[in-house]
Amino acid sequence: MSDVYQQSVEYHRQHKGKLGVQSLVSVKNRDDLSLAYTPGVAEACRVIAKDPTESFELTMRGRTVAVVSDGSAVLGLGNIGAAAAMPVMEGKSLLMREFAGVDSIPLVIDTQETSQIIEFVKQVAPSFAGINLEDIAAPRCFEVEDALQEIGIPVFHDDQHGTAIVVTAALHNAAKVVGKNFADLKVVMVGAGAAGLATAKMLLGLDGPWTALSQLSDIERVAQLKLVDTRGVVYPSRPDVTTHHNRFKAALLPFSNTPDEAGDLAAALVGADVLIGVSGPNLVTAEMVKSMAPGAIVFAMANPTPEILPDLAHQAGAVVVATGRSDFANQVNNVLAFPGVFRAVIKARLPRITTQMKYAAAHALAQMVPDPTATSILPDPFQPELAEKVADAIIAAQ
Amino acid sequence: MSDVYQQSVEYHRQHKGKLGVQSLVSVKNRDDLSLAYTPGVAEACRVIAKDPTESFELTMRGRTVAVVSDGSAVLGLGNIGAAAAMPVMEGKSLLMREFAGVDSIPLVIDTQETSQIIEFVKQVAPSFAGINLEDIAAPRCFEVEDALQEIGIPVFHDDQHGTAIVVTAALHNAAKVVGKNFADLKVVMVGAGAAGLATAKMLLGLDGPWTALSQLSDIERVAQLKLVDTRGVVYPSRPDVTTHHNRFKAALLPFSNTPDEAGDLAAALVGADVLIGVSGPNLVTAEMVKSMAPGAIVFAMANPTPEILPDLAHQAGAVVVATGRSDFANQVNNVLAFPGVFRAVIKARLPRITTQMKYAAAHALAQMVPDPTATSILPDPFQPELAEKVADAIIAAQ
Repeated sequence: MSDVYQQSVEYHRQHKGKLGVQSLVSVKNRDDLSLAYTPGVAEACRVIAKDPTESFELTMRGRTVAVVSDGSAVLGLGNIGAAAAMPVMEGKSLLMREFAGVDSIPLVIDTQETSQIIEFVKQVAPSFAGINLEDIAAPRCFEVEDALQEIGIPVFHDDQHGTAIVVTAALHNAAKVVGKNFADLKVVMVGAGAAGLATAKMLLGLDGPWTALSQLSDIERVAQLKLVDTRGVVYPSRPDVTTHHNRFKAALLPFSNTPDEAGDLAAALVGADVLIGVSGPNLVTAEMVKSMAPGAIVFAMANPTPEILPDLAHQAGAVVVATGRSDFANQVNNVLAFPGVFRAVIKARLPRITTQMKYAAAHALAQMVPDPTATSILPDPFQPELAEKVADAIIAAQ
Repeated sequence: MSDVYQQSVEYHRQHKGKLGVQSLVSVKNRDDLSLAYTPGVAEACRVIAKDPTESFELTMRGRTVAVVSDGSAVLGLGNIGAAAAMPVMEGKSLLMREFAGVDSIPLVIDTQETSQIIEFVKQVAPSFAGINLEDIAAPRCFEVEDALQEIGIPVFHDDQHGTAIVVTAALHNAAKVVGKNFADLKVVMVGAGAAGLATAKMLLGLDGPWTALSQLSDIERVAQLKLVDTRGVVYPSRPDVTTHHNRFKAALLPFSNTPDEAGDLAAALVGADVLIGVSGPNLVTAEMVKSMAPGAIVFAMANPTPEILPDLAHQAGAVVVATGRSDFANQVNNVLAFPGVFRAVIKARLPRITTQMKYAAAHALAQMVPDPTATSILPDPFQPELAEKVADAIIAAQ
């Protein structure tokens, strides 16, 4: 591991980052200048002033999205701030370019105030076809995203929805492998941050802003989802559930079929079909996995050290195990989702990413593995045309 | 003219703008992914978190500047707003790429409030090595720029300083052509917007924020500069000079040797050596030019129609005539300055652009024409290495 870290720093230093700006036209003489710049450019401005949608056709806006982060929750590194978040954001932009042919600009911003992040995105919106929010801490990320759904271009928080889409896809195929119906699954979600809550929302078939969630009737959802945070199961009469801090967790409760009883993680897992971990290292023991229902599914996605190592989980009876790491089978990686999502945004000039589109993306990913097995529930991210297929599924769900 | 307009719109439509994002590295397999993205990228983040200046070495930040506009004063088109300003900003970024090898991102922003523009630039600063402000209306542009001088990366308003640098270079060479000393010149500046006031400031050898200007002792300055706005000469006891609206014009007065007498443009020009127009079409008559001192210099830079056409000015006795247009001799074009300025910013990681650096850029440009003539006072923007020479002069003035 230390090798890849040192190598990566050298690799970043050698190239001074990973992305550059490229001219699509050449400016070799005064004629070129008069088309690309003055006087000709004035007419492109006038056309857009008359019809602002023309900015998608006459400028790079129509091909370009921004990756915006406040650096408050970067990988497992925590709140490292704007400048230090840049390598990750530039990496996201690189992956959009490489996996989906989408032009993307990383913007790290020196504020962590909810209202200022919202204002920043609104202000910069005329420059882009879409905004990928990234590594913004919960619960700020929920408020920021909800406030930006109606600005005319899509705002998509990848840590939430990228993870939710890929986990939903993986869980559909894992259920097939263990011979259970998706709609019968009892799920325990360990970790109530951005990824955990958004994935829970998706597995419960929920739509709408956090202040007004509703359950979609035409979407398949799991039978039960118990949310476990650092204080144990989030159950309806838990004394702190009504606090402002827990309002997003509380919003899920009415739809989750969580029994009104206290319990720790070990208690929650007894008889569960699925464990989804987006929390911390080694929180899950072999005994806990043994207590789950037969044919247990364990997604232990804490990085770099999972909630339980795959070998241990398998020994304890888990049939399908996934992690966030590339050195084990079944890597749950957002790169399966966000390039295709923004490919769709560019291709169809989507004004927003709806809940139905996220489900369509998840189903497209699941279907790319026609015969899932215990060690193959997700497609290879390097599979050709993957992003294009995800994009087309999203566009078809308009 | 209508041809170039239609051609330019088609040209913009064909390419969907002029700039793209380019990968500097390839991501073809899991090893690439582990260097460019997780897990390796975490170490680049940690290195920057420890020493934020490393963000210039390990990310695209060190190679990249932003072109930021609120769309409030775009070319001659006026306040057309953010989206419609994009073709110009993308054009600026293209010219930085083509003339100086500088990576540059256009950001048009949906606010025209001074404080919000200031906040926006501060917030986005960790993403870039420098900020080129563009097409922001006066007097807002002065306040915005003054507030952003100490944020650690240079903030340079091209409409002000790009113009000031090129006019100063041109005027040095024009003085040579007519055999006058620069320090003896009596100048009339017609137009008191961003370009006019900043050029006046530079020709008077002034340094510092607008609220605290001081005259640099080691800088050559003109003998007199009369500023003319829509109400005529700005003279000390003019009743409206003390109003808030005119505070930037008033700030120049103590240094300008303007006599305390009222007068219109015609009166101001009598006996003047130099007319600099950054105002409107056809405001200057042949009679006015005839009233100037022998060896008159006329820079009539209103676009697309100058204050007086070159033929007419020459017939009235002007020896050197410059305009903003490419179809006449002596085009005063910011493209001579800003690519080199930002080349210097990138090359030497400058924290700000000082007044001395702007003079150095002007002198470098003037010296690129070793034997100026009436029809050749400025270098050709397509001259090889021009931006590099401007950059090196700026860096030497550190």
